[in-house]
Amino acid sequence: MRFIDLNSDMGEGFGPWNMGDDKAMLEIISTANIACGFHAGDAVIMHDTAKLALEKGVKIGAHPGFNDLYGFGRRVIKGESLSDIERQVSYQIGAMQALAHVAGHKVTHVKIHGALSNMAQEDEDLALALGRAIKAVDRNLIYVVLPLLPMEKAAQKLNMPYINEIFADRAYLENGNLVSRKIHGAVIHDAEKAAQNMLEMLEAGAIITLDGKRLKTKIETICVHSDTPQAVRIAKTVREKLINNGWEIRAF
Amino acid sequence: MRFIDLNSDMGEGFGPWNMGDDKAMLEIISTANIACGFHAGDAVIMHDTAKLALEKGVKIGAHPGFNDLYGFGRRVIKGESLSDIERQVSYQIGAMQALAHVAGHKVTHVKIHGALSNMAQEDEDLALALGRAIKAVDRNLIYVVLPLLPMEKAAQKLNMPYINEIFADRAYLENGNLVSRKIHGAVIHDAEKAAQNMLEMLEAGAIITLDGKRLKTKIETICVHSDTPQAVRIAKTVREKLINNGWEIRAF
Amino acid sequence: MRFIDLNSDMGEGFGPWNMGDDKAMLEIISTANIACGFHAGDAVIMHDTAKLALEKGVKIGAHPGFNDLYGFGRRVIKGESLSDIERQVSYQIGAMQALAHVAGHKVTHVKIHGALSNMAQEDEDLALALGRAIKAVDRNLIYVVLPLLPMEKAAQKLNMPYINEIFADRAYLENGNLVSRKIHGAVIHDAEKAAQNMLEMLEAGAIITLDGKRLKTKIETICVHSDTPQAVRIAKTVREKLINNGWEIRAF
Amino acid sequence: MRFIDLNSDMGEGFGPWNMGDDKAMLEIISTANIACGFHAGDAVIMHDTAKLALEKGVKIGAHPGFNDLYGFGRRVIKGESLSDIERQVSYQIGAMQALAHVAGHKVTHVKIHGALSNMAQEDEDLALALGRAIKAVDRNLIYVVLPLLPMEKAAQKLNMPYINEIFADRAYLENGNLVSRKIHGAVIHDAEKAAQNMLEMLEAGAIITLDGKRLKTKIETICVHSDTPQAVRIAKTVREKLINNGWEIRAF
Repeated sequence: MRFIDLNSDMGEGFGPWNMGDDKAMLEIISTANIACGFHAGDAVIMHDTAKLALEKGVKIGAHPGFNDLYGFGRRVIKGESLSDIERQVSYQIGAMQALAHVAGHKVTHVKIHGALSNMAQEDEDLALALGRAIKAVDRNLIYVVLPLLPMEKAAQKLNMPYINEIFADRAYLENGNLVSRKIHGAVIHDAEKAAQNMLEMLEAGAIITLDGKRLKTKIETICVHSDTPQAVRIAKTVREKLINNGWEIRAF
Repeated sequence: MRFIDLNSDMGEGFGPWNMGDDKAMLEIISTANIACGFHAGDAVIMHDTAKLALEKGVKIGAHPGFNDLYGFGRRVIKGESLSDIERQVSYQIGAMQALAHVAGHKVTHVKIHGALSNMAQEDEDLALALGRAIKAVDRNLIYVVLPLLPMEKAAQKLNMPYINEIFADRAYLENGNLVSRKIHGAVIHDAEKAAQNMLEMLEAGAIITLDGKRLKTKIETICVHSDTPQAVRIAKTVREKLINNGWEIRAF
Repeated sequence: MRFIDLNSDMGEGFGPWNMGDDKAMLEIISTANIACGFHAGDAVIMHDTAKLALEKGVKIGAHPGFNDLYGFGRRVIKGESLSDIERQVSYQIGAMQALAHVAGHKVTHVKIHGALSNMAQEDEDLALALGRAIKAVDRNLIYVVLPLLPMEKAAQKLNMPYINEIFADRAYLENGNLVSRKIHGAVIHDAEKAAQNMLEMLEAGAIITLDGKRLKTKIETICVHSDTPQAVRIAKTVREKLINNGWEIRAF
Repeated sequence: MRFIDLNSDMGEGFGPWNMGDDKAMLEIISTANIACGFHAGDAVIMHDTAKLALEKGVKIGAHPGFNDLYGFGRRVIKGESLSDIERQVSYQIGAMQALAHVAGHKVTHVKIHGALSNMAQEDEDLALALGRAIKAVDRNLIYVVLPLLPMEKAAQKLNMPYINEIFADRAYLENGNLVSRKIHGAVIHDAEKAAQNMLEMLEAGAIITLDGKRLKTKIETICVHSDTPQAVRIAKTVREKLINNGWEIRAF
């Protein structure tokens, strides 16, 4: 039997506002990354999402981002020291740990959100700082990284647990990074195509780039998004395609 | 030898703004309550205050409040369920725990800030909710309460560790509650008078009200404020007066 | 021909989050109250809503509330001076005026949002402060008030333009105030019943209370909500019922 | 008689926090740029600063920045469309206009704050967007620009009123831009040196760079900072030096 994890970002509402269909996604995925109140999420949503995940047997991680509700953590913010960013990430992890504990659950991993994650794909110093922020809170926390990029190298240098993630609905560049959302073709909207891509990458043990190049790497989790209209359909299609081809969906 | 703890609220700046002279206060007090980013404080300040407290041998607690930077947590906010408030308090405690851990320190207690604390002096349901929020994160955390009031009763009902606090610069009502800041005489600006009051209350084992009535109670910590111009002077005077009269200043 | 205005609160998203179906509502109503960034709304949404309203021939007003995104302006906040609240309301009106102007439109009225409005129904000093905040920005701005309550009296005392509003989906108390949302029956979910109520009140020239009592008053605008699932249907039904009974829907 | 304006950024506290000695500065300067609540400032501070400026005979402008209280508008934020930034700037100007009006004063100019201004020194599209944001609110508003840089070109292209500003405490590059604060020598801490620099630049009708090169330009206002410990002393020294050399300090 072969195993693969499906993860999705969750709890990205705030106060009176909702985003995504978390309940439906929790039936599909095996781990959930919960927003921590900086780019989205609030204490109530964090707790309730952790509780729901527990009920559905879904593992949870903290999903910290920039303190930018207005920009949903997708705006690049520059001008802070790395140590300041470390504190902000540790803060969010701690808040998530407490609310997970209150809900009877436990944070097993940390996945960085949005612009902060994108920036770290091109900046090893930042990738190291993020790793330190995670490890300093709890050395058992798993750092979710993009393989072949600075984040993976950072996790290795820090000698901390990490897992490699690929994205179901995104096209890849030759260096293993994601094609920018601004480029046509960067985001895959066709559920069947996304599912087929994932199956091929898993079978190949490689990221397959937009140009068909194969970048050998361990793949341990697939991210399915939750915040687009077609999200649930893509996630379901990926799940079914993988199961039908002999992969078991299971948390890392 | 008799012991008493001196505590003060700390880390109440935000981003570019400072408040109070934390460095000076950390030479005087034995425990510090650190703001957690909702009414004041941010991840950097929280970490750095915890680190400084560690260096000075000062114990630390989380100091959660309403999510109201503009109002500094001093505005009464109504309309949320108690469980929502519980989550918000647990969130702040978790964030503080993580940053304390990063700094090599440890959160030993929780003291509620401002309006949220004031409201709980008159509302046992709220006082219980705050206690539950603390206990749910970590059952060893100490709940700092005003004696004789709903908070103390809540801590007893929840069978959780708590300590009794009195305020150096505030006048007391007959029910053990603080005279409202809006009333003339509520705040004591004279350092010598504040110190004398504290000594008398400690010696009497009682809160002494504005009218001279003695309310018997265990007293385990004295709060000296840090956010007024005369703060450091009052704190120093209280400390010296107590030491000169045979009290050792020591964390609970 | 008899005229009545239909108004609705609009632009209540924030950053990445949406609320309500503003486009559909703008086909139904004659004036829109646009959130100003304190309890909901942001500069982009404010501008775009004003522009869309202009295209649909819908008049616009500022819809200021407490600075409480998390609580959507529905939490009661106490502890500020009235003059502080005045400044905050004037701030929001000015921001809305600027963005209306940029969009080629013009702010004609101000309707207070949520808890701030509820509080003013029971506090004439606050109702006066809100009126002063509006008048101080522009003495031609119309103060939208609940008739028979402190807001109407305040507008009269301040000798400023005002209009009387009733709510399509809310039950009324004998003093003309709304039945609290916490009471069963306070909110009317049946579209036909809401429409029938409105028609009866308009024909009677009176607010009709839950107990059937008639409170004579001028009625100049009807508020239809936009933030509930059934909002568009109720609004349409009210509009059609009124038109079918000889009322023209027209901005005040 | 020769005239020059002295301007300073003001009202940069928030809620419970203060920054700078605005009262002292208002005795020295001829125009004040008031923060608008996004990077600093709030409705109460904006109003009160406008009122105090009026009493002191000081003209006022809006001082809009990124919506980043934590970073004080000094963090570079990227990822928004130019039109989104335009709306945010217009929002802030409108809020300031309203509160100025409430205080009996009037906004005459707009000076962009911090990172948003720095970014526009190197990006004409952004400098144009900022100009449009100002002009769209009120075509009489004066755009405060750094001469020889994209902002000045943008103001010219937009055919809108503008004035040229130099900084008393900053060193200049050969292209007329400021030496980055990260470079040693970028900020001048010596009051006498700053004053002498300003006199020389005014007499030369040129920006004098760090290397002594003279860049001919009209100079209409000098910015003296208010947020550093030595701020008031530098401002006073500049003022006195200029007056002693035959320059009258007068609002543009």
